[in-house]
Amino acid sequence: MNKIIDRIEALNEAAMSAARERQDSLTKPPGSLGRLEELSIQLAGISGNEMPTIKNKVVITMAGDHGVVAEGVSAFPQEVTPQMVMNFLNGRAAINVLAKHVGARITIVDMGVAAALDRFPDALVNKKVAKGTANMTQGPAMTNEQAEQAILAGVEVVETEITKGLDIVGTGDMGIGNTTPSAAIACALSGIEASKMAGRGTGVDDEGLKRKIDAIERALEINKPNKDDGLDVLAKVGGFEIAGLAGVILGAAANRKPVVVDGFISTAAAMIAVKLAPAVKPYLISAHKSQEYGHQQMLEWLELKPLIDLDFRLGEGTGAALGISLAEAACKILKEMATFEEAAVSNKEA
Amino acid sequence: MNKIIDRIEALNEAAMSAARERQDSLTKPPGSLGRLEELSIQLAGISGNEMPTIKNKVVITMAGDHGVVAEGVSAFPQEVTPQMVMNFLNGRAAINVLAKHVGARITIVDMGVAAALDRFPDALVNKKVAKGTANMTQGPAMTNEQAEQAILAGVEVVETEITKGLDIVGTGDMGIGNTTPSAAIACALSGIEASKMAGRGTGVDDEGLKRKIDAIERALEINKPNKDDGLDVLAKVGGFEIAGLAGVILGAAANRKPVVVDGFISTAAAMIAVKLAPAVKPYLISAHKSQEYGHQQMLEWLELKPLIDLDFRLGEGTGAALGISLAEAACKILKEMATFEEAAVSNKEA
Repeated sequence: MNKIIDRIEALNEAAMSAARERQDSLTKPPGSLGRLEELSIQLAGISGNEMPTIKNKVVITMAGDHGVVAEGVSAFPQEVTPQMVMNFLNGRAAINVLAKHVGARITIVDMGVAAALDRFPDALVNKKVAKGTANMTQGPAMTNEQAEQAILAGVEVVETEITKGLDIVGTGDMGIGNTTPSAAIACALSGIEASKMAGRGTGVDDEGLKRKIDAIERALEINKPNKDDGLDVLAKVGGFEIAGLAGVILGAAANRKPVVVDGFISTAAAMIAVKLAPAVKPYLISAHKSQEYGHQQMLEWLELKPLIDLDFRLGEGTGAALGISLAEAACKILKEMATFEEAAVSNKEA
Repeated sequence: MNKIIDRIEALNEAAMSAARERQDSLTKPPGSLGRLEELSIQLAGISGNEMPTIKNKVVITMAGDHGVVAEGVSAFPQEVTPQMVMNFLNGRAAINVLAKHVGARITIVDMGVAAALDRFPDALVNKKVAKGTANMTQGPAMTNEQAEQAILAGVEVVETEITKGLDIVGTGDMGIGNTTPSAAIACALSGIEASKMAGRGTGVDDEGLKRKIDAIERALEINKPNKDDGLDVLAKVGGFEIAGLAGVILGAAANRKPVVVDGFISTAAAMIAVKLAPAVKPYLISAHKSQEYGHQQMLEWLELKPLIDLDFRLGEGTGAALGISLAEAACKILKEMATFEEAAVSNKEA
C-alpha cells in the first residue's frame, strides 16, 4: 500500500497558473464562471496540462454487505444489495441512467456482497473479500489484512480502468446498512459523536435511527479505533466497498487522475484515503452535498466544498455522475472559448 | 399580447400524480433523488405526459443595448454587445461551449443592439426594435408600443423554434449595462430599494456601483413605474432583450413548454412575465443562483428555488444550459429506471 501512497505527487503549479491566466483572457468577465473556473484550474493542476481534456469518464460503483445490519440499522433488507447489483448490471438503476446521461461508463465491483453473484461473470468485477463484514458492535468489521486487501483491490480496479482510458473517475457505492459504518468512520476520525453524524440513510424511522446511533456508539466503544491510523479505523468500523473506494481514490491520485467523490459513503472512503495519504486531498472533487445528516461535517473535515446540492441521498455514484459532467464542462471552457484577442472583443475599461 | 396570455393553462395534475407515483415505484428509496424527482414531476405537469421526453433543447440568447450606459454603470464599453454577438455566431463564447456540452442548439436574437449587425443575416435572428433603449434616467427606456412589439417578437422567436422541435427552452441575454434595468425592474416590482438590489454586474468598482444605484433611483423617480402593470414597468425601466425574453417565457408557457430561467437579467424578464401572466409561474425552472447581488431576492419574489449555485455571474444562458441538462436527466430517470417490480428488488421493510 505504501508503494501507491508514495507515488501521489503535488499538483502541477505551472499548469494551474497557466490555466488561471487563460481563464482571465477568455471572452467573459474574469471569474464570472465562478466555481467552473476554479474546477478547471484544479483539473489543470491534476493533469499537468493547462488545457486538460476529459473524454473517458468512468463511475466505479462498489458493493458490499455489513454485519451490523443484524442490529436493525437499515430500512431495507440485506437481500437488496445483490438485487441492486443485478439491477446495475441490467442497466436499469439510477446510476445507469445518470452515467449514460453524462457519457460515462460504469464498472460494478463486488467487494464483499453476502451472496453469490455469478450470473454475470463478465460484467461484474469480482474482488469479493468476504461475504459481508463482521458485526462491528461485537468486534472489528474486518481484519487489517482484509482492509489492506480491499484497498489494493480498489487500486487495481482503477488502474485497470486507466489502461482502458480514463480521464476522470467518480466513486459510487451500494450496500444495505452502509451509512452506519460510514458514520462510524466519520465519528472515529473527526471525534464528533454518533448522534450528530448518523442520519436516516435509505429511510429508517425514529426507532431505527436510535438503534443506528446505539450501534455506532457500541462499535466505537468496543473497538476503540485509533483516529490517527486510517487502516485501523477502516478495519474496525468500515466496510469492504468503503475500503475499495479508498483504494480507487488512492490509485487515481497516484496516476494523476481527478476523483469525483459522491455522497455520504464515498466521502467516508475519502476520509480514510486522506488519513492514509494527505497528499490525495487536492485530487478530490466533491460532487454534491448529500441530504444525509452529517455529510456536511465530513466535507468540512476534508475541507471540500460540494459542487451541487440537489437533496440527493441515494449513493451509487449518482451525484458523482453529475459532478463529472461539470468537470468536463470546466475543461471545455478552457479549451473551446475564444480569448478577447482571438474574438476581437474589447476588454474591461481600465 | 392578451391572446398569448389567455392560452397559458394550469399544469396537468393527473400527469403529475402519475409521475409522482412512478417515482415512488422506481428502484431507489422514495425521494432519494431529491430535487430531480420534483423537477420530473413538474415537467410531467407541464407536458401533460407522465413520462415526458426532453430531446430538442434550445437556448435563446437575446441581445440589446441600453441608453443608461451613458451614466457610467458598466465596466465594459457598449461596443462589446455587438462584438459578443459576433462571438456567439462564431461559436466561441461560454454559452456556445456549454450549450454544445448539454446538446442544446442556440438561437441568437438581435432585439435592439446599438449597431448594425448584418454580417450573419442567416445565423442571427433580426428582431431589432431600435438601436438601444433611451436613457431611463431621463424618461422611459422605450414606448409601450415598443415594449409590446419586443414581447411579441419573443413569442414569435420561441414559436418558430417550437415548429423546428423544442422540448425545453433556456433563456439567455447579452447587453452591456443590462444588470441596471434588470435591477430597476426588480426594485419597481418588489418595492426593494436600489442599494439592496444592484450589484457589480460584469465588475464595476465602488464608484461605478454608486453611479449604478443612483441611476436606478433616478430612473424610478422620474418614471414612476406602476408596480401592478408589468408592461409599464418594462417600458419605463426595462430593455429590449429583457422584453424579448419575457415574450419567450410567455410563448413557451402558452405552448406548454418548460422554461429554464438563467440568472439576473433572465429573472427580471421572468418577473415581468409573471406580472403580466401569473399562470406562467409553474412553467418556470430556475437554473441557478447568480452571484449578482439581489438575485436571491428576485427568486424569492418569484417563489423559485434555483437548482444550482456555482457562483456564475455571466448571463448568456450559461446557467440555463446546465439547468437544461438536469431537466433532461430528471425525465430520463422517470423513463429509463426499473421499478421494484420490474427489477425484482425487495422494497422497504414495512
